Amino acid sequence: MARSSTLNVAVIGVGRMGADHVRRIREVVSGARVSAVVDADADRAEAVAARAGGCAAYTDPAAALAAADVDAVLVASPGPAHEAALLAALAHDLPVLCEKPLTPDPASALRVLDAERRLGRRRVQVGFMRRYDAEYVRLEQLLRTGRLGRPLLLHQRHRNVTSPPGWTSDLLISDSLAHEVDATRWLLGQEITAVTVLRPAPSGDAPAGLQDPQFVVLETDGGAIADVEVFVNCGFGYQVRAQAVCERGTAHVGDGHAMVTQADGRWGGTIAQDYLERFEDAYDREVQTWVDSVRHGTPTGPSVWDGLAAAAVCAAGVRSLTEGGRVEVELPERPSLYG
Amino acid sequence: MARSSTLNVAVIGVGRMGADHVRRIREVVSGARVSAVVDADADRAEAVAARAGGCAAYTDPAAALAAADVDAVLVASPGPAHEAALLAALAHDLPVLCEKPLTPDPASALRVLDAERRLGRRRVQVGFMRRYDAEYVRLEQLLRTGRLGRPLLLHQRHRNVTSPPGWTSDLLISDSLAHEVDATRWLLGQEITAVTVLRPAPSGDAPAGLQDPQFVVLETDGGAIADVEVFVNCGFGYQVRAQAVCERGTAHVGDGHAMVTQADGRWGGTIAQDYLERFEDAYDREVQTWVDSVRHGTPTGPSVWDGLAAAAVCAAGVRSLTEGGRVEVELPERPSLYG
Amino acid sequence: MARSSTLNVAVIGVGRMGADHVRRIREVVSGARVSAVVDADADRAEAVAARAGGCAAYTDPAAALAAADVDAVLVASPGPAHEAALLAALAHDLPVLCEKPLTPDPASALRVLDAERRLGRRRVQVGFMRRYDAEYVRLEQLLRTGRLGRPLLLHQRHRNVTSPPGWTSDLLISDSLAHEVDATRWLLGQEITAVTVLRPAPSGDAPAGLQDPQFVVLETDGGAIADVEVFVNCGFGYQVRAQAVCERGTAHVGDGHAMVTQADGRWGGTIAQDYLERFEDAYDREVQTWVDSVRHGTPTGPSVWDGLAAAAVCAAGVRSLTEGGRVEVELPERPSLYG
Amino acid sequence: MARSSTLNVAVIGVGRMGADHVRRIREVVSGARVSAVVDADADRAEAVAARAGGCAAYTDPAAALAAADVDAVLVASPGPAHEAALLAALAHDLPVLCEKPLTPDPASALRVLDAERRLGRRRVQVGFMRRYDAEYVRLEQLLRTGRLGRPLLLHQRHRNVTSPPGWTSDLLISDSLAHEVDATRWLLGQEITAVTVLRPAPSGDAPAGLQDPQFVVLETDGGAIADVEVFVNCGFGYQVRAQAVCERGTAHVGDGHAMVTQADGRWGGTIAQDYLERFEDAYDREVQTWVDSVRHGTPTGPSVWDGLAAAAVCAAGVRSLTEGGRVEVELPERPSLYG
Repeated sequence: MARSSTLNVAVIGVGRMGADHVRRIREVVSGARVSAVVDADADRAEAVAARAGGCAAYTDPAAALAAADVDAVLVASPGPAHEAALLAALAHDLPVLCEKPLTPDPASALRVLDAERRLGRRRVQVGFMRRYDAEYVRLEQLLRTGRLGRPLLLHQRHRNVTSPPGWTSDLLISDSLAHEVDATRWLLGQEITAVTVLRPAPSGDAPAGLQDPQFVVLETDGGAIADVEVFVNCGFGYQVRAQAVCERGTAHVGDGHAMVTQADGRWGGTIAQDYLERFEDAYDREVQTWVDSVRHGTPTGPSVWDGLAAAAVCAAGVRSLTEGGRVEVELPERPSLYG
Repeated sequence: MARSSTLNVAVIGVGRMGADHVRRIREVVSGARVSAVVDADADRAEAVAARAGGCAAYTDPAAALAAADVDAVLVASPGPAHEAALLAALAHDLPVLCEKPLTPDPASALRVLDAERRLGRRRVQVGFMRRYDAEYVRLEQLLRTGRLGRPLLLHQRHRNVTSPPGWTSDLLISDSLAHEVDATRWLLGQEITAVTVLRPAPSGDAPAGLQDPQFVVLETDGGAIADVEVFVNCGFGYQVRAQAVCERGTAHVGDGHAMVTQADGRWGGTIAQDYLERFEDAYDREVQTWVDSVRHGTPTGPSVWDGLAAAAVCAAGVRSLTEGGRVEVELPERPSLYG
Repeated sequence: MARSSTLNVAVIGVGRMGADHVRRIREVVSGARVSAVVDADADRAEAVAARAGGCAAYTDPAAALAAADVDAVLVASPGPAHEAALLAALAHDLPVLCEKPLTPDPASALRVLDAERRLGRRRVQVGFMRRYDAEYVRLEQLLRTGRLGRPLLLHQRHRNVTSPPGWTSDLLISDSLAHEVDATRWLLGQEITAVTVLRPAPSGDAPAGLQDPQFVVLETDGGAIADVEVFVNCGFGYQVRAQAVCERGTAHVGDGHAMVTQADGRWGGTIAQDYLERFEDAYDREVQTWVDSVRHGTPTGPSVWDGLAAAAVCAAGVRSLTEGGRVEVELPERPSLYG
Repeated sequence: MARSSTLNVAVIGVGRMGADHVRRIREVVSGARVSAVVDADADRAEAVAARAGGCAAYTDPAAALAAADVDAVLVASPGPAHEAALLAALAHDLPVLCEKPLTPDPASALRVLDAERRLGRRRVQVGFMRRYDAEYVRLEQLLRTGRLGRPLLLHQRHRNVTSPPGWTSDLLISDSLAHEVDATRWLLGQEITAVTVLRPAPSGDAPAGLQDPQFVVLETDGGAIADVEVFVNCGFGYQVRAQAVCERGTAHVGDGHAMVTQADGRWGGTIAQDYLERFEDAYDREVQTWVDSVRHGTPTGPSVWDGLAAAAVCAAGVRSLTEGGRVEVELPERPSLYG
């Protein structure tokens, strides 16, 4: 399709994650719109469709996928419903973004894979979002350069504050660990060949019967070993961290810090070299906020008064620089418009 | 205007900053499009307009502002051209996002302010992008809560790798310090009443004759004192940092770290509580990348093969959890489609 | 005096600081003993002397300095008493370690300087202990190498939890700032030529009438500018920090971190290269603790049981390495001696 | 023995580690002296004895232990020689500090244990110096409080720049891992019950045939799981780190940082509350340096000139505080004595 035309997306499943994707496509993402929402719960589908500006609402995915104004599909329904949605989208030759897991088990995943192979081209993307985290991206790029040598070990942590009601020991693997499984494969560029799950004494803060935490050792076909702590009732926060240990250095990424490396006798990170790099997100947010405010009425950011005040202070600053000493700032009364 | 209609933006001045805003509106921002570009250099205007999908190109701002499909104006021309552009936009009652400085001196700023006052409503926003940086926003919110008491001191740093050719000592104030002037006013919610610029021995790495670094002391009408190091030939990176010292604690923001506070005998920061909070940016980037790739052809992210591999590893993991010991992963041959 | 003979020290003034020095000389420092304590309060002198193993106690410094077994003097009395103690020690040609301030004002300091000059050799050391802090030492060494170019700016912070009763605004300068005055001179290797003290609105948590915080600007004969925040009722902790901004990079030291530099596009620090470097303090503490425990009775550190357990685990580890898989550790019953 | 008498120590084995302990006892440790050195290499023993101020030198440990002026023994000979030295010291009922390993294998360790049990009291301390590292001590204390709940996992790293010539895969366990074996037992207060050593693909920078790195999983009788990365050719530095994951938070210690905890939605550390706490080491070093310089001749630290300069600057500062504005510092010519 042409670059200039907007992508019409059907969102299947509009629970917490799906509804958030609807909001994202409407308010954040450029070049796409939500043309249909699908949910087994008709009321929920209607409500989200209304909030999305009145797009079509369906309870049957098949009906949505057959609609004329659906160019692409975002699957955010529960895992067991993924296979049917994926096969239907592939039958319509529609591109899909499918929330993880692709499907809950290898057999059904293989059926989806076979369907895509028969189609002969890639249509499906799986929602492993670690691959889009700025820090993980930086880590993967660094590992690919080989500057630190081959990766030998990969230490990972995956911690949640508390587990949802009814959580089971298996879900720590198929729901939580699944992310680190993909991250391990992607960061190392290697397949995983064996898994060992170790069971420390469970935390007293975890629900009775839940094996939490778990400590998992993954072996790869490249000879690397990856360990993962999965702890879904850690109580203190949500954390996702990875440290790659390579032949000549380490690199780690995690909460609230840019990537830190250790090599050549030093630890540390890079410093931005440019304001567009440092404030890229701020510029994006600034213009998006301005567009939103103008579409709704009036700009809310720094005003002409703020511009005038800055000009007055800078004029005083230049005088102080030139003449020396302290210079008082001259500013008129603040007009009520800028109250 | 209605929420659903797209905002048509004329971008005046498409040098480095303006061209980046054109790209931003096209590729990043939701709900807006570039309908006109204006530049004194006709070739540059044409080139950017072509890259922007063929919108109108002008050399005269007045012509652009009179066009039917212009709903709003983004001014990114050189500072001396701002006053004329702003007055013209206000004459058309158009909302404006104006790159800083509003205008280069207080007298011209006052003329813009008078024009907006006569219009009787806010149309102009000035591009002080610190206010949209996630860390600065967090700092401002914290200060507003009063949890650390009143701010007493504000230490700020503004460092650039090197200054552009022809830079002057005055520009360290009117171009660089201007950001900290606004940040000081905004973070403290106070007006600046006096300025003292101190002149250390200039760096030998600065161009001859340039007073670099400068150390500036700002006094406010709330009794706070803010100091700013401006150093535009520091050589090592671009850095913008602020530390507020309040009655009962400090908080600082800067490169590559989330906000760190000191209070109650402890230093540190907050931990994300949720995956939507931790990976918000990653989700945005994931969906935007998917939309872009699909509009151009085919998804490029994690494939069905990746989904299958994760399912196979997790299945082995669940067996290891249940039965104990090491479990090998069973995976079919990798199809060439996923080469 | 010969390296092998022990230095007999008279400690003048045994309040908090002096009593701590008595303990230090007895328990931590090698090659010295306390042979006399002096305090205007006879009971206090007696009590400290008794705790120090029964050395002589005096109320008159002159009597102590005349004693045969006094080789050196440590002055920890209140500042106003320093001049007399220093002049008396110089009259006896005794080496002195004098807590800061040397004396409370320039005129009396000059009299001490004249006395030492007449003696013709250095006998007096002033207790500016920043110069012995491992981090400050590293910073000073780095600045001396010139690797980052000349220092242009020096940002310093000096914060206390609360001020003692009766503290005055002047004391923030003569008692607190005095340390940064010395640190500035020492780190930069320059004399200070001018001082400006700025007065932000005082913290509501400071005692009424106390100008706290203060923000001080120091100018040096080398053209550098140093700024110091002195805040003695900050509430959250005791902090002493310094950041030198040089022509080609910065370096800062402070609480709980080793020195961090910024240069060449990177921030970070060095990594120890060796276990003697990394664990130097631990080895010192280990041997000192062992000596102390043995002199009092019996060793309290890791026991033979601990050594046996380590050997048994390592033996199992070597088997696991060689044969693969999990190896159980064989350990006898723990004897009651090692309860 | 009485607190006031000096402990006479025989040091057995004066290679790198033993010679460093001789220096430590002479120059750093209070209350002890080296009365004898023993080494199989007679020349080395003589040389170290000469440097140690002329104490007795032996090649036969038995002769040294029989000497009248030996109160205690520090064993720093190679591991295989430990058993004989320990049994001899126990036969003389002398307290011993024995470098790790106690002995190279469980059988010999058990013979030493039996000898000490027959003696009926603890005489031997093993040199696991992690237990004396300030950060490890803080971590152990925190774990003992139970404030973070029970420890469930313990992640440890042990990295060396390069391995010595002739290093073997077994030595990564018996020499390097041995420290983490003890640290695990000590930090958790639990015995280790099983070991699994995993073998990633060796680093290309390790000598051929050396299994480096190794990844070790330790299980304890308290149900905790500890993992240790041992990597002795990491190239970039020497690092020893530990992170305890408890039921309600984590705490980690490592190079160059004070302990950092994660709990209650926040990460961070404590801030010193007091100058004696913050500068304890600096005070110790200050007084020790002063004592050393005085015993050799003349003080080398901050001089009377430094004290005078500080007084003059502070006097100017008090005037600036009182009268406002910038005050110049008055200082006489610097006398040549203070060159």
